[in-house]
Amino acid sequence: MRHFTSEPVDEALLERLLKAAHFAPSVGFMQPWRFIRITDKDIRQKMHGLVEEERIATANAMGERDDEFMKLKVEGILDCGEVLVVSLMEDRDKNIFGRRTLPEMDLASVSCAIQNMWLAARAEGLGLGWVSIFDPNKLSGLLNIPPTGKPVAILCLGHVDEFYDKPMLEKENWAKRQLLETVVFENTWQNK
Amino acid sequence: MRHFTSEPVDEALLERLLKAAHFAPSVGFMQPWRFIRITDKDIRQKMHGLVEEERIATANAMGERDDEFMKLKVEGILDCGEVLVVSLMEDRDKNIFGRRTLPEMDLASVSCAIQNMWLAARAEGLGLGWVSIFDPNKLSGLLNIPPTGKPVAILCLGHVDEFYDKPMLEKENWAKRQLLETVVFENTWQNK
Repeated sequence: MRHFTSEPVDEALLERLLKAAHFAPSVGFMQPWRFIRITDKDIRQKMHGLVEEERIATANAMGERDDEFMKLKVEGILDCGEVLVVSLMEDRDKNIFGRRTLPEMDLASVSCAIQNMWLAARAEGLGLGWVSIFDPNKLSGLLNIPPTGKPVAILCLGHVDEFYDKPMLEKENWAKRQLLETVVFENTWQNK
Repeated sequence: MRHFTSEPVDEALLERLLKAAHFAPSVGFMQPWRFIRITDKDIRQKMHGLVEEERIATANAMGERDDEFMKLKVEGILDCGEVLVVSLMEDRDKNIFGRRTLPEMDLASVSCAIQNMWLAARAEGLGLGWVSIFDPNKLSGLLNIPPTGKPVAILCLGHVDEFYDKPMLEKENWAKRQLLETVVFENTWQNK
């Protein structure tokens, strides 16, 4: 997305987008996603503060690209129509279907749900950004997420003035799109 | 999907599905996915063996639902038109954009790519199953995946005789679909 506009997100549309997410496939049909809709302006402001704190910490850890990083638009928390926090559910350890050797498959399922919502939002003309620049423990504290849960996304959703014609980080020369051939191998790993 | 048929997957269609995956959003535009297309029948057979081994280990760890689990169809490796292994790329530690506090965001991006492919496949009339019942170290050994990479999915893709009208695990009474209200909260975590 570019810049969010002040137009609110229609309530019925928001529910359809949440349904699109909820109907994603999940490991062992676990449905490990929890969505927290942030309607309280004060909480939104505090979340923005947490992201700003981690944005600076990330820049400091980046070395020579820190200035370049700090110029990028990485969130729209104060401007977007809706802010949603997506969290892994609590008490996941008892679910071992598809997770005995790969416990992180709960995150994989939650990501499928977010991607469903992302595509549905875009089809409805809304922009969505997935912000992962925050300390999950601090966000858990703010939203009372239990210790066995874990927030993995702050979603900024809303109407935008226009869409990028390619990924923003490609336009800004942060990184290039790789050729498909470089990420597809046959039968065994190949370094390309 | 139900049962895979012997009809092969068209090569041009397979490439379109891989492109749909590759055009997924990714954290810091990292594009951390690698796809290994398995065309060697012997490797396919060995992968089936790895999954069977872990299927039994999972059942043993499951306690009282072990028999019920063993009756479920959890893979179609030997029957499907195409088998693809999806792996996290190597040497991911240098990418801290959106990953300083949440390094697992590379898996989140790879999962978005798989969900893109899943939806595109279904729209094209193909079934897809994400198998995560395997030991990633053993699969890495079989496919020569480097130690800093990690396989996270065996995808079984192909033509099917028919589609389920609801998730297979719901039809088989393994688990129920939760009500949307139970996974959506407002401003703070609620136990529902």
